[in-house]
Parts: sequence; C-alpha cells; structure tokens
Amino acid sequence: MTTGKVTLLGAGPGDPDLLTLKAAKALAAADVLLLDDLVAPGIVELAPHARVIRVGKRGGCRSTPQAFIERLMRRYALRGAHVVRVKGGDALLFGRAGEELATLRAAAIPVDIVNGISSGFAAAASLGISLTHREHCQGVTFITAHRQDHGEPDWRALAATGTTLAIYMGMSRVDSIAAGLLGALPASTPAAAVQWAGTPHERRWTGTLDSLAHGVAAAGLGSPAVMLVGAAIGEAFVQCTDAAAAVGHAMLPRAA
Amino acid sequence: MTTGKVTLLGAGPGDPDLLTLKAAKALAAADVLLLDDLVAPGIVELAPHARVIRVGKRGGCRSTPQAFIERLMRRYALRGAHVVRVKGGDALLFGRAGEELATLRAAAIPVDIVNGISSGFAAAASLGISLTHREHCQGVTFITAHRQDHGEPDWRALAATGTTLAIYMGMSRVDSIAAGLLGALPASTPAAAVQWAGTPHERRWTGTLDSLAHGVAAAGLGSPAVMLVGAAIGEAFVQCTDAAAAVGHAMLPRAA
Repeated sequence: MTTGKVTLLGAGPGDPDLLTLKAAKALAAADVLLLDDLVAPGIVELAPHARVIRVGKRGGCRSTPQAFIERLMRRYALRGAHVVRVKGGDALLFGRAGEELATLRAAAIPVDIVNGISSGFAAAASLGISLTHREHCQGVTFITAHRQDHGEPDWRALAATGTTLAIYMGMSRVDSIAAGLLGALPASTPAAAVQWAGTPHERRWTGTLDSLAHGVAAAGLGSPAVMLVGAAIGEAFVQCTDAAAAVGHAMLPRAA
Repeated sequence: MTTGKVTLLGAGPGDPDLLTLKAAKALAAADVLLLDDLVAPGIVELAPHARVIRVGKRGGCRSTPQAFIERLMRRYALRGAHVVRVKGGDALLFGRAGEELATLRAAAIPVDIVNGISSGFAAAASLGISLTHREHCQGVTFITAHRQDHGEPDWRALAATGTTLAIYMGMSRVDSIAAGLLGALPASTPAAAVQWAGTPHERRWTGTLDSLAHGVAAAGLGSPAVMLVGAAIGEAFVQCTDAAAAVGHAMLPRAA
C-alpha cells in the first residue's frame, strides 16, 4: 500500500467563511479529520468522506494527548489515508505544528500545510483597526502567555520593541499579564480583547491597560480570546455598538 | 442615492487558492475593484461585474497616490458603489489600512474588513516550519524594514524578545538589515527568505544570518520577499529540492 499524506490545516478563527479555498478543497478530499477543540463543528460538513476524530486537548493533561495525536496521524497516513489535521487559526502559530512536522518527517510521510487566518487578525478586523498603523508602530508581535516552562513572557523586552502586542492564550491569567504589562507600558496604553472574533458569539472589550483586567472580567470575556495592546489599538472605535456588529460592519463612523 | 460601502480585502500572498471564501464572495459582489500592484492579476476574474482600477504605488511617489486612492474609495462609495480595495496579504498588516479607515470614518462610509493570509505565514508553510516552535521561542514579530522616517528598526530590542522575526519590505536593503541583525544576534542564527511564497514563481533561500545578505543575492531573490530569522527557522529542511516543490509538499523528510 502506498503511503498517504497529512495536511496541517489552519481553519481560521471560527467563521467558516474565513476558510481559504485551498482549505475547503483539502477538507473535501480528506479521508480522516483530526479536529481540535477550537474549530467550529460545522467544518465536518465540508469533509463528507472523512472519518472524524476529535482530538481536543483538555486542561491538565497535555503531553499524552499530543503524542496520541501524532500517533494517529502517522498510523492513518502509513495506511494510505489523506489525513487532515485541523487547527484553529493558522496552523503554524502556537499550534504544536513544530512537533507534528518533526514526527511526520521522521516517518517519511509527505506533508502539506494550508494557512489560515489567525485570531489576532480577525480581532483587528472586528475592531476596525490596522495592527500596524504607521503613525504608531512598525510591527506587531504575536506572543503566547502559555509558556512551556510556566514562566511569564518578558513584558519589558516586548514593550521595548514598540510593536503592537497580540497576546494569545492569556485569559485565564489576565490579572498577572496586565500587572506585567503595567510594569513596562504606560497605564493609558490602549488595549482590547476579542473573544471568538468574527463569529456570532463574538465579544469584545476596548479600553486602556490599567482597566484591562477588570474590563474583560466585567464584560464577561473568557477563553478563547486575543488581547491587543499598543498605541495602534487606540484607533478602535471605543464603543462598538451591537447594531454595527449586526449589519456586519467593522465599525461605525467616529464622532467628528 | 444611498451610500455604498468599502471592503478592505486581504488577497493573500498570490496563490488564488489562498483567498478566503469570504473574499471570493466580496469580489463577486464588487462594483469597483481598487487593485494593488502585488495582487495576482487573475483575481479580476472573480469580480466579473467590477470596474477594475489599478492603484499600485510605484517607487519615489508615495504620498500623492495614497491620497488619490482614498479619494477614489470615497467618491465611488458615496455614489452608492460597493468598492473592494484589494491588498496583498492581510489588509491590516503594513497596508496603509489605518489611513484608509480614518478617511472612510470621516466620510461616514461603512467598511467591511476581510482578512487574508500574510506572506510571512505562507513563507513558513513553504519552508515546512512552525513560526513559533515552542522549543525555540514563544512568539513571532512581524516588522517592516520600510519605516516612515527612513530609519532602521531597533534590531537589538527586537532580538531581545527572543521571538522569531518576520521582516517585510526589506529586500532592497538586505545588506544593512543583515548588518543590524548581526549586531544583535549570533552569526549562526538560522535565517531564510521566501519570495512570492506559495506561487509558481516562488524562490527561497535558507541558511544562517552571516550568509543572509550574500545568500539572497546569490539565489537571485528580490522583492517582494519575507525574511525569517530565529532559532525556530532552523527546523526548515536546508535543501528544499525542486522535486518537493513540484509535487506540492512543503518539505521532504529530513535525513535521519
């Protein structure tokens, strides 16, 4: 039997319309889907021939499931199947793709990678702002608050770059993140958080760094959400009304 | 007449298959397309009803065209048209979206934003690597070498974050960028450059920081390309063969 292949596929932030055409084609051709928790369930309808296996990771039990996922990918591909490993956002940002690629390389299994929209971009779209407005910064840093060694990111070093910060996987420790950022940036630095960006479940909060921890709690935001911090975020319309969201517009005109 | 609207649309890195489904729908509904230089020409076929206006910026003449583009968007939208402003990559990363959004807000014109795949992600997919392999780093910084004030980015501050660096719009000054990076990072730091990632015209180079400037020149890489620098980039297969590219796989298995 010939070896199959694996496609590492980024499914975007949750809105099925944010899948790429390439992703839709890969799903249509899939024999086996390995589905992350954060992927919108409706995606299985795009893979009518696939056996669907849910491989979401649940808290406190990480290493065994990751090894298990890699074993599944390898096993099905070596039997000749086209395995599509579906991840939220982009497949190459904070998704353990590095380990999966190493496993597949070691087994001589061919791999395709299909990019997706990462939630930081979708959050900026929802807020109606550029991540890198040239009057404010010259870049953006995507950082995970969920370090392998359980330490905190070096907020001072990150702040010193002057880039917009897009912080992933930080909602469960927003208090310590906000405290760390306040040690490195002015209290008045614009900040925002967007949960389930671009989906009907979206929730968002905008304000300043000194109100971030209280603000997201008061607004009822939880995981999965992205926090955005930096001067460029100040371009967001401060009160995005529900009406604006309902008609699908990223913002209403600012008061003159 | 009712006011139309503007969609700021990210067309991805050039492969039409990397458009999102949402982007394809917006193009199909467009009355007017304002097209950047870097967008693949074939995209106009997805917008059969649209008047197509090419608004690429050419060297040495920047501020007037940007104002002109904004004037066109405003004029057509105020006449009731659905204007789709098509940008390469994602619309919210290094694309002057900030200024365009401000103009549209001031004119009370509704705006949609449709995300796209930025070329740094497509470059990583082509190289078969995670941008943020957790054994190497905890994030990635997207930075433009093309500063508004014509200065250099602060490479020392960027290097101090330990994040992977994805450097956009830097090919014309790769010598000074490499020199700046060598003042902040070890000469042996893995580096790569990918031009026209994910398209039939793709070219790529991988090596180390001390060979970056010479390497991209020797490999004949020019704009538009993304440079990737950092330990995570060392996971790239060093010699991506043409055979691997031809069959559409991101990499061949590494030698054991």
